[in-house]
Amino acid sequence: MGKGRLEAFSDGVIAIIITIMVLELKVPHGTDWSSLTPLFPVFLSYVLSFVFIGIYWNNHHHMLHAIQHVNGKILLANLHLLFWLSLVPFVTGWMGENHFAALPVALYGFVLLMTGFAYLVLARLLAAYEGKDSQLALALGRDYKGKASLLAYAIAIPLSFVKTWMAFIIYVGIAIMWFLPDPRIEKTVAK
Amino acid sequence: MGKGRLEAFSDGVIAIIITIMVLELKVPHGTDWSSLTPLFPVFLSYVLSFVFIGIYWNNHHHMLHAIQHVNGKILLANLHLLFWLSLVPFVTGWMGENHFAALPVALYGFVLLMTGFAYLVLARLLAAYEGKDSQLALALGRDYKGKASLLAYAIAIPLSFVKTWMAFIIYVGIAIMWFLPDPRIEKTVAK
Amino acid sequence: MGKGRLEAFSDGVIAIIITIMVLELKVPHGTDWSSLTPLFPVFLSYVLSFVFIGIYWNNHHHMLHAIQHVNGKILLANLHLLFWLSLVPFVTGWMGENHFAALPVALYGFVLLMTGFAYLVLARLLAAYEGKDSQLALALGRDYKGKASLLAYAIAIPLSFVKTWMAFIIYVGIAIMWFLPDPRIEKTVAK
Amino acid sequence: MGKGRLEAFSDGVIAIIITIMVLELKVPHGTDWSSLTPLFPVFLSYVLSFVFIGIYWNNHHHMLHAIQHVNGKILLANLHLLFWLSLVPFVTGWMGENHFAALPVALYGFVLLMTGFAYLVLARLLAAYEGKDSQLALALGRDYKGKASLLAYAIAIPLSFVKTWMAFIIYVGIAIMWFLPDPRIEKTVAK
Repeated sequence: MGKGRLEAFSDGVIAIIITIMVLELKVPHGTDWSSLTPLFPVFLSYVLSFVFIGIYWNNHHHMLHAIQHVNGKILLANLHLLFWLSLVPFVTGWMGENHFAALPVALYGFVLLMTGFAYLVLARLLAAYEGKDSQLALALGRDYKGKASLLAYAIAIPLSFVKTWMAFIIYVGIAIMWFLPDPRIEKTVAK
Repeated sequence: MGKGRLEAFSDGVIAIIITIMVLELKVPHGTDWSSLTPLFPVFLSYVLSFVFIGIYWNNHHHMLHAIQHVNGKILLANLHLLFWLSLVPFVTGWMGENHFAALPVALYGFVLLMTGFAYLVLARLLAAYEGKDSQLALALGRDYKGKASLLAYAIAIPLSFVKTWMAFIIYVGIAIMWFLPDPRIEKTVAK
Repeated sequence: MGKGRLEAFSDGVIAIIITIMVLELKVPHGTDWSSLTPLFPVFLSYVLSFVFIGIYWNNHHHMLHAIQHVNGKILLANLHLLFWLSLVPFVTGWMGENHFAALPVALYGFVLLMTGFAYLVLARLLAAYEGKDSQLALALGRDYKGKASLLAYAIAIPLSFVKTWMAFIIYVGIAIMWFLPDPRIEKTVAK
Repeated sequence: MGKGRLEAFSDGVIAIIITIMVLELKVPHGTDWSSLTPLFPVFLSYVLSFVFIGIYWNNHHHMLHAIQHVNGKILLANLHLLFWLSLVPFVTGWMGENHFAALPVALYGFVLLMTGFAYLVLARLLAAYEGKDSQLALALGRDYKGKASLLAYAIAIPLSFVKTWMAFIIYVGIAIMWFLPDPRIEKTVAK
């Protein structure tokens, strides 16, 4: 089974998710600077989530570039990833509108943790389907970066209830770590 | 006529439907657990509908994979399917926000029944267009699963007014039954 | 210049337009039949607009199927068509929520008139670019159906202020007339 | 790495941005002309932004048509462009709903300035990747038009606080200047 429609559908869903988040930036009624001030945390959350979803699209693009075929299990694992991604606008809005209160920050981390986990499952299934000597399997290797991210989220979630800003710093750190396209896959594919 | 744009348009519409449902998960004003509690039934409805729409996308993908061409009637039958799918976010929101009251649960079932019927019509038209010895016609066969689903919806709708939770259990059962990609088509295509 | 991205972008925009209209079907607070009653005119408007936009997608699909290349003017004419289509959700919502009052029904007709006009301009440009002996030019011919629709809208708009329901009947009549894919193009292409 | 998915994802995001702007045109409660009056500035903003986003899609289409491959940096530069484009619906709504007050008009210009800057960065990266003798590099040349636009925005932003309508006139002027597809690229490609 070809991968074309899987890519097209994922592109569609991710494009919509990344765009509807901006609807949480509600148009203010005033026209001065002070009417923009309450939007600042919402905007900050939007930027962070835009970067995260952009990274996922980017890596999803790289990963599927390295493979040729998909099966039924992979379609389901991809839907599972899209499900968690689809919850990002909700937690982004909740975190932003409540000025980074503890529980919203923790839930934001939980959704990112589940998204990262769903991505890891999809990557494993793809690597297994391609074979352990495939480009993708070699490129993924032991996937220290993916596992480190999951660990960091798992630390950040309880930390939200102690020092909320520290959890937020961890999220930003993970985003920066992933910001550049995965050199493992790009290098291996380039060989 | 090629099937490319039919797939692209359907992917677009289904991707939007599956994503705008999350807009019913309205960001709560509070920041504690109790402010999330009223969202639980909305979230549960969202999960169920996400699974249903994911299944439709999945099976639509499989079905169109097995064919090569489409005609005008098929385009209309596909639009008909998309019409009923487009009503899923509305009935999902109504069911979730009213904590699974009888009429919303019944209407949810009715929209799923009509969606299932529209899918069946599309499948028949595709099989007829491909010919009765085609892969698709053989793969669909007598389509016990599709017919059983319609029957189950037809039972669940009146049942909503008697024991609402039983109707809901039937919907969940149908979702589980369809969750895995249709082995009939995958097997036949693989031959 | 290839037509691939023109089709992809148009499919995307049309898919979103046809889907966001359903957001006007606001989830009611009650759970009985009477809470659905005020939604009936909104639903009726939605069905009519879904059919119209479905027809446009369908015919757009047929028309672009018959051509190979596009130029800058055609891209702009296509954007012009998408602009008027993008106003359909607004006029649909206004007409539905006001139970088919005179001015909303007239404005609905005006947007459909401009959409039809934009479609006609796009068709002319495509036929001119392909050459007067092209499949598309022959298929369009004198385009009685397109011109008749524009005339019908032009009659319906003032009529909205006299007998609103007659304007609505005209819209429904036009929708039915266009409902089947254009046999002119399909036949010519099939030759 | 192929450019297909970059185009598909960008088309998706741009299609959604151009379409969700129409959601700011809130359905009015009245049914007479006076209930439409307050929507006029919102509509005017919508038209201007539709033209701007249409131009970006158009030129993005032209630019990517002239190239064959993309790399990781280009994907990020494209995401950066989409980020600024995604803020257009917000500033469009704010400007329209406040009848072109000074600060919203300035912020509108700022978002357009950053979008133009992001486009310029993307164009530079593409030209560098293709090589300085490539079609695209030659077509872009010294890019007087792009630079002139950025300068014009930089003038319009402070001007918003002095004579708001003059800033608006500048935006309209830039839109008109870009309205036709870039002849530089079309000509060079056509050679």
